[in-house]
Amino acid sequence: MAALRTFMKHDALAAFIVPSTDPHSGEYVPEYWETRKWISGFTGSAGTVVITHDQAGLWTDSRYFIQADQQLKGSGIVLFKDRMPGTPSIAEWLGEVLPEGSSVGIDGWVNATAVALTLKENLAVRGMQLVATEDPFTQIWPDRPVLPSACPFILPISLTGEPCKDKIKRIRQAYQERGAEGLLVSALDEVAWTLNLRGCDVHCNPVFVSYLFITNADTTLYIYKEKVNDELRNYLFEEGVLIKDYSAIYEDIASCPLHCLFVPDMTNYALYQAAGHVARLVRDTSPIVFLKAVKNDTELMGFENAMRKDGIAMVKFLRWIKEAVNSGQETEISIDRQLQQFRAQQEGFKGISFDTIAGYQEHGAIVHYEATQETAATLHPEGLLLLDSGGQYLDGTTDITRTIVLGAVSEEQKTDYTLVLKGVIALSKIVFPKGTCGTQLDVLARQFMWEKGINYGHGTGHGVGHFLNVHEGPHQFRMNYVPAQLLPGMTVTNEPGIYKEGKYGIRIENTMKIVRHAQTEFGEFYRFVPLTICPIDLEAICVEMLTAEERDWLNDYHRHVYEILSPYLEEEEKKWLEKATQKI
Amino acid sequence: MAALRTFMKHDALAAFIVPSTDPHSGEYVPEYWETRKWISGFTGSAGTVVITHDQAGLWTDSRYFIQADQQLKGSGIVLFKDRMPGTPSIAEWLGEVLPEGSSVGIDGWVNATAVALTLKENLAVRGMQLVATEDPFTQIWPDRPVLPSACPFILPISLTGEPCKDKIKRIRQAYQERGAEGLLVSALDEVAWTLNLRGCDVHCNPVFVSYLFITNADTTLYIYKEKVNDELRNYLFEEGVLIKDYSAIYEDIASCPLHCLFVPDMTNYALYQAAGHVARLVRDTSPIVFLKAVKNDTELMGFENAMRKDGIAMVKFLRWIKEAVNSGQETEISIDRQLQQFRAQQEGFKGISFDTIAGYQEHGAIVHYEATQETAATLHPEGLLLLDSGGQYLDGTTDITRTIVLGAVSEEQKTDYTLVLKGVIALSKIVFPKGTCGTQLDVLARQFMWEKGINYGHGTGHGVGHFLNVHEGPHQFRMNYVPAQLLPGMTVTNEPGIYKEGKYGIRIENTMKIVRHAQTEFGEFYRFVPLTICPIDLEAICVEMLTAEERDWLNDYHRHVYEILSPYLEEEEKKWLEKATQKI
Repeated sequence: MAALRTFMKHDALAAFIVPSTDPHSGEYVPEYWETRKWISGFTGSAGTVVITHDQAGLWTDSRYFIQADQQLKGSGIVLFKDRMPGTPSIAEWLGEVLPEGSSVGIDGWVNATAVALTLKENLAVRGMQLVATEDPFTQIWPDRPVLPSACPFILPISLTGEPCKDKIKRIRQAYQERGAEGLLVSALDEVAWTLNLRGCDVHCNPVFVSYLFITNADTTLYIYKEKVNDELRNYLFEEGVLIKDYSAIYEDIASCPLHCLFVPDMTNYALYQAAGHVARLVRDTSPIVFLKAVKNDTELMGFENAMRKDGIAMVKFLRWIKEAVNSGQETEISIDRQLQQFRAQQEGFKGISFDTIAGYQEHGAIVHYEATQETAATLHPEGLLLLDSGGQYLDGTTDITRTIVLGAVSEEQKTDYTLVLKGVIALSKIVFPKGTCGTQLDVLARQFMWEKGINYGHGTGHGVGHFLNVHEGPHQFRMNYVPAQLLPGMTVTNEPGIYKEGKYGIRIENTMKIVRHAQTEFGEFYRFVPLTICPIDLEAICVEMLTAEERDWLNDYHRHVYEILSPYLEEEEKKWLEKATQKI
Repeated sequence: MAALRTFMKHDALAAFIVPSTDPHSGEYVPEYWETRKWISGFTGSAGTVVITHDQAGLWTDSRYFIQADQQLKGSGIVLFKDRMPGTPSIAEWLGEVLPEGSSVGIDGWVNATAVALTLKENLAVRGMQLVATEDPFTQIWPDRPVLPSACPFILPISLTGEPCKDKIKRIRQAYQERGAEGLLVSALDEVAWTLNLRGCDVHCNPVFVSYLFITNADTTLYIYKEKVNDELRNYLFEEGVLIKDYSAIYEDIASCPLHCLFVPDMTNYALYQAAGHVARLVRDTSPIVFLKAVKNDTELMGFENAMRKDGIAMVKFLRWIKEAVNSGQETEISIDRQLQQFRAQQEGFKGISFDTIAGYQEHGAIVHYEATQETAATLHPEGLLLLDSGGQYLDGTTDITRTIVLGAVSEEQKTDYTLVLKGVIALSKIVFPKGTCGTQLDVLARQFMWEKGINYGHGTGHGVGHFLNVHEGPHQFRMNYVPAQLLPGMTVTNEPGIYKEGKYGIRIENTMKIVRHAQTEFGEFYRFVPLTICPIDLEAICVEMLTAEERDWLNDYHRHVYEILSPYLEEEEKKWLEKATQKI
């Protein structure tokens, strides 16, 4: 912090803001950009540090209040609890502690344009100005981790289903429809999808650090030279993609005479400043988000393969855990290791798709719980384990939640489990017309628990990438309005839950795809088909709470699970699965 | 038309646009402002005439294509079919037929500000300017109907539940929260609600022509002097409301130094021009819409009385019509007359709340059907009659649709009827958390028909005024996003339908109120309670398509209907109702 303050003095800055983001606004960040972790000692995924010459604060949300409190001890950094009554915003706090006319610094590279512009405005009304600097941590962080240098690898057409060239053609058409002559692609999953490349620069997300700049004439990949081997160079040459150094994007954007589509939510403020002053940016959402969300037949086939493999791993795991908890030796962490081992046995497994949430009993009620060595509970043959996990496979990404009965469960647990299941089934069964968005369907998953005065604070579903990020837009199931239409070929999760503080959490999640259902005199209708292939624990169901149609759905789903998975299982596993998927 | 062209020449106008609206943007318009009807001969409720020196066109929507085609014959006015492929917008058409630099006239008083500003912009990009004139029809319409001169009447506190003074206090607080120092009230139902007055200037809407201007210091009603009798003058004096002439609003707005809240969707362009040049308008939605939508206990009690009376009239009518159709003499028009007679027998009946839609068999499939002497079908003892009607009572407004079985119905009709009923029940039964909007719940009414590839093109529900306009905002049930939250005390209709062109239409509609349901650890929950008290025809129900819970809902509802209505019925009517509400 002292070093940063020296840097601030040099630049005449009264404060400096260190966010948890990187130049590409991703959900996960390479270690190189974990500057906020390094300077504060706080390891949570979300949080912003603000440093003045004599004070420092960390803003984070309710998920991390306890953790931040512990980790900040002795650091001199004060915890500010985001969105709690009385907590000032960063700009409000700076307005209180700094004199008018002060300059507040940020690294323009690691702040999204939309975020920086809002901050700038909020500082301006308090008489302060925002100053974007270079990255101070290149000077002050001695043992800073290196930038990832692994070479991206090519995903063959047999897995992607569409050549890079064709994707670029569709992207050009899409940005031209929005009145632009080019598109700066900054989101790493969009670069990876467009080029049919994947990488391993980021935890859980198979992407690589780079920018892509598409104009009507050229497509250029900006990437560290050391990350490009001969194979990749040849591939990009074949696809007509030029290669430039990662840092050259700044100059090229600054000097580009075209009206480029610029995505303020995803693209950093340094690039906005480079390009912004000539006022030729078309600010809009990224057209790639919409193209990427609709999977082609090859991708959907890949999803089916990945889901089968993930289902095999899950069945092996479920059979194992129901026995293993009897030992009294397994913890929320050890069982996650075991699950990962089962997944790793599957062909094309490339790692987990997000950090596992394994919450036993009361830990299940903490929606974003991640067990640590200190908190990890030991499992016993009783109650419920909420397990939300997923894998990255070469042919697809999985995201599955099962709530697992480890032994005796209460009537309240069974009732709530069944309410959640009824929601999953109602959303799974719905047929809906073209033009429908997720906000319209969200109620289907909540209606049964609402009747009992229960609700959950998260969305009901999100898109899933094809061997890419597990959280993908533009569509969602949410109570809040998300206008993106649900279209055939999209993937989407279906994951209602009930969380009773201090008691237990229940969530059941299938990933689904959207397919065409019927064309009638009233228009086109779509429906969902589950992609996830894994039994839903029967032991916590109140059968009498299910209608005949709901039982039919569950029995059909379980028959399908057995048919798909049983050929790949050992005799004992098959027997276990037969019972786990028995007709109710 | 020749006279209007002379007026245009005098003002150097190349074209003049005559809309179907009045100075207050209401759904219904006093005859005095039915200028578009007079000049074109086209009597439909929606349509805009555009006149140049050598051409003329009428723009209307698909409801009126056939009618307009017939009524425009020989008029020299060309029909333009709104929203059909290839139809130019008014501005596009004027761009084609007029030279650049042309002036296009409108009467600023009868065009809402939002409409006029959009038109102005669309003309400007084509090199034309919009000119707002005075009303040309004062000069050119010789036998123009007079402005309504009846005196508004006072609705006592026993019916409104809140003194005018208190309402104004709440309105002041609401506009102050939006940063304004005053509010110009132009929507007639908002004036009537605020002052606890009703009128009879407009068909179906119990309102009176006026403006209300509320500032922190004063409240002023702008109304024609001849409409104010001593009683009203005294009442307004008591309530602290000043009275000025209707036309004085222009001067007062023009000279007002305050930052006033101005509602561009509802307030006319003449007043915008009067006030707009000093740039001190706070453009926003009207806060009264939100206050008016939440009914107080007195208003809700009034609704219950009105609904009981309407239910009595409906039961008498239903019993009558099931017999009467055997004569072969009744038509879609004659039965409406009979229904109105039954309603008129009820205490406090003040007229119908909208023009009845009585559609027999294939006419039921025309969503906005209104029978005329030419089209009215004769009813026979077979098939379905869709009947959507409502009454204005001193204590409340009703809006009810029943689809009535007149004799043999097909299996398809029964299936569709039951799908609609299932939708009504699902939406009636839902419990939902605070913060929910109508868009989230709309699917509940549609889900069953969607499964069969069926949908309807209208919203599922709207607010209902308290002895005021039958269509009230801000909340709705719609597929499109309507952000207004559903709050306890609001009224809302529940009216899904199925329309099979050339065959039949089915709609079932109850008006409901929103009540508090429960407060739990997950927040506050609300639910609906039906206000409409009238049997739902059992004869078209496929009982086997209903779940036990759905049958329970219908049986409970029918028991309630019988309990409420039977004390007011003759012995024979009671017997009929007992059968009509029997348990299924």
